[in-house]
Amino acid sequence: MSGQPLAVALVHAPVLDRRGDRVVSAVTNLDLHDIARSARTYGARRFYVVTPAHEQVALVKRITRHWSEGHGAAYHPDRAEALRLIETVPRLEAAIAAWEAELGRPVCPVLTGAARQDGIDFVACRRLRAEQPLLLILGTGWGLAPELFERGWTVLEPVRGVANYNHLSVRAAAAIILDRLHLPETVAV
Amino acid sequence: MSGQPLAVALVHAPVLDRRGDRVVSAVTNLDLHDIARSARTYGARRFYVVTPAHEQVALVKRITRHWSEGHGAAYHPDRAEALRLIETVPRLEAAIAAWEAELGRPVCPVLTGAARQDGIDFVACRRLRAEQPLLLILGTGWGLAPELFERGWTVLEPVRGVANYNHLSVRAAAAIILDRLHLPETVAV
Repeated sequence: MSGQPLAVALVHAPVLDRRGDRVVSAVTNLDLHDIARSARTYGARRFYVVTPAHEQVALVKRITRHWSEGHGAAYHPDRAEALRLIETVPRLEAAIAAWEAELGRPVCPVLTGAARQDGIDFVACRRLRAEQPLLLILGTGWGLAPELFERGWTVLEPVRGVANYNHLSVRAAAAIILDRLHLPETVAV
Repeated sequence: MSGQPLAVALVHAPVLDRRGDRVVSAVTNLDLHDIARSARTYGARRFYVVTPAHEQVALVKRITRHWSEGHGAAYHPDRAEALRLIETVPRLEAAIAAWEAELGRPVCPVLTGAARQDGIDFVACRRLRAEQPLLLILGTGWGLAPELFERGWTVLEPVRGVANYNHLSVRAAAAIILDRLHLPETVAV
């Protein structure tokens, strides 16, 4: 299914570390590559990399420039195509604002989290997507900080496998969520 | 759905490089972590890392030992649980043999490839899984070497997104395929 335009945001702050403290997580090279390629595969139009750290922004720009412009682009044209979706923004609000400015209308932020009990299911999320542009929000580290869940934004249920093990990488979770949002609206998963 | 036991094999040889030459690809640390975590999430019982290169086997063992035994295991018990699924084997045939020996019955090898036109769909693959233990075979580099497709083994159709962009990372493809194989058998995707 296609539906309304979709964008992805990968948040590096505010996120939690393993002790539950608020941190700015470091940008991971493979997060950019993998999520950009998954986003491009499923027709997402933008991939916002959210980090307030200047040196991290510089790192993202160095990576995307390497693959989009010089030798990297010629060597790997499909990577270039994916990495061109990337835009760095200092805060999540700036990602929402940029995405709304690009579309000229409101977008619906959709938070994700492996431990959430309060999320809508994938069927409801596909229904939402048919009606409204979405911004799918993924956390790095040990997940999005709790205050982001206090804004009344939509929350998506976690991806669940078998039993109680629920420790997918953010790269794997992004891929699975994008694939599930791409399923026909009528499918009951 | 559960079905019969499932294992995953990540092949580093024989695979192709970007020019279509047969190579032994290098083991990537995050492939081990991500695919082990996805495998564990979806109840796969083994994750065979296929490489004939001794120093690569040593690398895999160093990584898995770090996370399964010492400080790493205490720091990240869920990673340890996932990485314990890993077993290194020199050739794909050895993965099949090991998996059959463990189960005491024949397993069905299932090849994957982003460019294959001859694969069964996911519905058929879930049906297969309900009947027989599977070994899901993923290629690194530019994909599994063509001779692996000449053995009469089952081939799974590629994961397709929108339009013609089909360049998921092996980490993302593994996650999506495991998620899709986990869907109820009756779902038409």
